[in-house]
Amino acid sequence: MPIYTCLHAPGVISKDQKKAIADEITRIHCGVTGAPRSFVNAYFTEVAHGSHFRGGKPADEISVQAVIRAGRSWTDKQRIAREVSEAVAKVTGRDVAEVSTTVMDLDNRFIFEFGSYMPQPGTEKDWIAGLQGRAKELVQEFN
Amino acid sequence: MPIYTCLHAPGVISKDQKKAIADEITRIHCGVTGAPRSFVNAYFTEVAHGSHFRGGKPADEISVQAVIRAGRSWTDKQRIAREVSEAVAKVTGRDVAEVSTTVMDLDNRFIFEFGSYMPQPGTEKDWIAGLQGRAKELVQEFN
Amino acid sequence: MPIYTCLHAPGVISKDQKKAIADEITRIHCGVTGAPRSFVNAYFTEVAHGSHFRGGKPADEISVQAVIRAGRSWTDKQRIAREVSEAVAKVTGRDVAEVSTTVMDLDNRFIFEFGSYMPQPGTEKDWIAGLQGRAKELVQEFN
Repeated sequence: MPIYTCLHAPGVISKDQKKAIADEITRIHCGVTGAPRSFVNAYFTEVAHGSHFRGGKPADEISVQAVIRAGRSWTDKQRIAREVSEAVAKVTGRDVAEVSTTVMDLDNRFIFEFGSYMPQPGTEKDWIAGLQGRAKELVQEFN
Repeated sequence: MPIYTCLHAPGVISKDQKKAIADEITRIHCGVTGAPRSFVNAYFTEVAHGSHFRGGKPADEISVQAVIRAGRSWTDKQRIAREVSEAVAKVTGRDVAEVSTTVMDLDNRFIFEFGSYMPQPGTEKDWIAGLQGRAKELVQEFN
Repeated sequence: MPIYTCLHAPGVISKDQKKAIADEITRIHCGVTGAPRSFVNAYFTEVAHGSHFRGGKPADEISVQAVIRAGRSWTDKQRIAREVSEAVAKVTGRDVAEVSTTVMDLDNRFIFEFGSYMPQPGTEKDWIAGLQGRAKELVQEFN
């Protein structure tokens, strides 16, 4: 966690753009929250043609759905929503009005990741110091 | 927002039925909440054979998962859950017991869409009046 | 409901492992909560190569995202998160640090399933006794 899922029509986001967007999401999330880079997941999901409608009409806007640990400030969540939309628009050459981002909270106590319950926001450093084995490797590998 | 995601087994929902379901979802959501049609997204996601189980057994019921702006009444959310299930069942020729619908809330302040933070339920008209450029076009195009 | 969605890279979970994981998820969920087996949905979603990043780097850890009816205790939700991760790791032969599980609540009043609003946790038995027709068949078939 967090998990950012980016829904897009076929051909709308290239392989290189996925990498660039994942970089931007990681940069924004860590910049706003102070979380370590190794926590930030970005997924891309292709929506088949004829499988996205807006107001009953075929649509192809990009939708980013973020689930983050609860406890971030109102301001931080607003920054994430805006900056991710702007970054995805920039990378894909689209108007920002064609990219939506939603931010949803999830209680860290009910997230089991790296073989442990995730830490409360702000306590990541001590938590990481306590990791061992494969969990420790993963945090280092992805930072 | 809202985002309605409809999970279904391969071949269970035809191209024309997707359009009909998207129309019904839009009609129901706007009828219950008063939101503009251009806000309503419907996605269809095909679940591969052998990738949906119920009670550990292969299953093929249809699941609709709605995420809507927080602030709607208990009654409105119940109407949406029931009426969407009924509409999907009717369009696909299934028993309503084979279609589930879930409705989850999301705070409008943490939704960045049409280049703006989304409005609180009930304030859509003024918010739309303030849109410009591509956002204004999109709202008009999909209404 | 509940709905467990398991995201995985191509080839990471075989057909037989999906069945085994669905069995384990059903066993764990029902063991912890007392819910009937017929309520428990498990979905598997393949994430295409190049479509999952962690910290901006290609990743292939497994992510399980559970949405369950609200009202379970803190302890129960923690048990689910941990035991599902452990079970998926065991079935797939991975280190538990490579499997994350998140548990999110959803109010039962806004879930329409088996042709009815879902019952509050703890009242399933009476609710099932009142089901009829196809809903009754489904509950029996998947138990």
